Amino acid sequence: MSFAIGVDAGGTSTRAALVDAAGTVLGTGRGEGANPNAHAPEVAAGRIADAITAALGDRDPTAVRACVVGMAGVSKLSDPGVAAVFDAAWTRIGFTCAVRTVADAEVAYASATAAPDGTVVVAGTGSIVGRIRGRRLAGTTGGYGWLLGDEGSAFWLGREAVRSTLEALGRGRPLDGLPSAVLAAALGLSGLDVRDAGERLAASRALITAANAEAPVRLARFAPLVSIAHDAGEPAAREIVDRAAGHLVENALAARDPGESTPVVLVGSVLTGASPVGGLVRRRLAGLEVLTSSDGVLGAAWLAAVAAFGEATPRPRA
Amino acid sequence: MSFAIGVDAGGTSTRAALVDAAGTVLGTGRGEGANPNAHAPEVAAGRIADAITAALGDRDPTAVRACVVGMAGVSKLSDPGVAAVFDAAWTRIGFTCAVRTVADAEVAYASATAAPDGTVVVAGTGSIVGRIRGRRLAGTTGGYGWLLGDEGSAFWLGREAVRSTLEALGRGRPLDGLPSAVLAAALGLSGLDVRDAGERLAASRALITAANAEAPVRLARFAPLVSIAHDAGEPAAREIVDRAAGHLVENALAARDPGESTPVVLVGSVLTGASPVGGLVRRRLAGLEVLTSSDGVLGAAWLAAVAAFGEATPRPRA
Repeated sequence: MSFAIGVDAGGTSTRAALVDAAGTVLGTGRGEGANPNAHAPEVAAGRIADAITAALGDRDPTAVRACVVGMAGVSKLSDPGVAAVFDAAWTRIGFTCAVRTVADAEVAYASATAAPDGTVVVAGTGSIVGRIRGRRLAGTTGGYGWLLGDEGSAFWLGREAVRSTLEALGRGRPLDGLPSAVLAAALGLSGLDVRDAGERLAASRALITAANAEAPVRLARFAPLVSIAHDAGEPAAREIVDRAAGHLVENALAARDPGESTPVVLVGSVLTGASPVGGLVRRRLAGLEVLTSSDGVLGAAWLAAVAAFGEATPRPRA
Repeated sequence: MSFAIGVDAGGTSTRAALVDAAGTVLGTGRGEGANPNAHAPEVAAGRIADAITAALGDRDPTAVRACVVGMAGVSKLSDPGVAAVFDAAWTRIGFTCAVRTVADAEVAYASATAAPDGTVVVAGTGSIVGRIRGRRLAGTTGGYGWLLGDEGSAFWLGREAVRSTLEALGRGRPLDGLPSAVLAAALGLSGLDVRDAGERLAASRALITAANAEAPVRLARFAPLVSIAHDAGEPAAREIVDRAAGHLVENALAARDPGESTPVVLVGSVLTGASPVGGLVRRRLAGLEVLTSSDGVLGAAWLAAVAAFGEATPRPRA
């Protein structure tokens, strides 16, 4: 008997699934996050290896014919030193097959559709749009990580919430709604006197200090405040949500050929959760087949199964 | 005899000047950067104290009647622990006067004009616009540091250069000009095959990794490439320069009352150096009195001298 294994390794959790040629899930494993941009390569590789070992159970690792690992931060493996750490981990767990590491967007796309070509729009803590051709990432628009882009992501939404608050403070605007919510969440401040320029400047400086005191991606913690303010009808929040959806839709369309009728797969908390950004993106993509991915690990397992057993392998189900 | 001392403490250098009641510069000191956001508070405070001690020479520190320290990252002193480190440094050098720490923008403004009210537009590695009233910062627009804003700064220009390169790579656009210059500077790459999607994706990932491998503000190193590409007439670079100037001018005007006729003081390498952003900002502010600050330490020294000896104290000259 032979197997295929898929892994979905994100910033906060790692999951593995073992499937057979019939697409039956025979075992699963899970662990903490394994994004090599957020964790040391040894830690990330070790967590992925542990999740694979758990999914294998007492089965022979040399019976695994293909393994696909979808990974946030996969670009880190372009560093030969990092790639060597991962290769050593595969050897340690007894694999004789090659392990294909791919962008997490690729496995998310494959989890939602069997169509070989299409578009995947990811917006969780980060964001990216992938142009999918033959189930491979053939190009990206947007993305680039928090330092360079990630427009429309929870990081971006949270940062815009803080920027909007700083602008309201600096320009003497009312602080009701989003600015008040941000100041309360970041500093425990409430009832700031909007007419006192000194108090506003002090709050502004304290907010900048608070935002810089944590890891940049932690700005994502303010994203839910934008959703709440949006749903309360606040213009500043509606404008942020509108821009987030605009960036994601623009990047999605830029990844498609003119008149392309392939599916668009939405992935990540900003697009599949309670955020109003998802709804707005769906409305703007009306007319296209828009799907949702909620379980990337099964996409990874299917990609591995197709590599091991051929195109006709049934898609695994949770 | 009594004195006043001014300090201008930036990210890369710290300068101090000792003046008397006639505005004569009696001594100067200098040291490395002392921005408490970029250096440990002990290091920043120590470098400022050393520059002051050098400017004092063998004069009695208790004869200093006022000291003004203009500082990038002054908001960090809203942390009582950080403020205590600086207070201890003033005590150690034997000061009996109070030391007033102010935003670097305040001393830059005072270095260019005696007008009590006006606007200061700073664009060096970072950017901020200050509304000046009674020579004090009465509000800001823009700014916020690299994580939250700094539109139009060298950091921002460099980041846009990298983003523009990633967009050209991702969307299969020609790489001539700015993208080629960025790829050469960041990765030593040249002659990338623009038609090979895999090669473009690999270059894109390597560029993201390279940008994230250094401190974020180091993105400022790509800013000069935007100037060169702008001057060569490249549309992408002209668009970046246009947006940079647009952000700075918009923030400048937002810091002014309708019809305000006070001076606008331009500060920092992006506005006073070879960058085309400065020229564009000047053209868009035509009709206003636009001045340039090149020596913030003399502004700090004058603010200290005014505090010590009164409003009529002559402005110190280099």
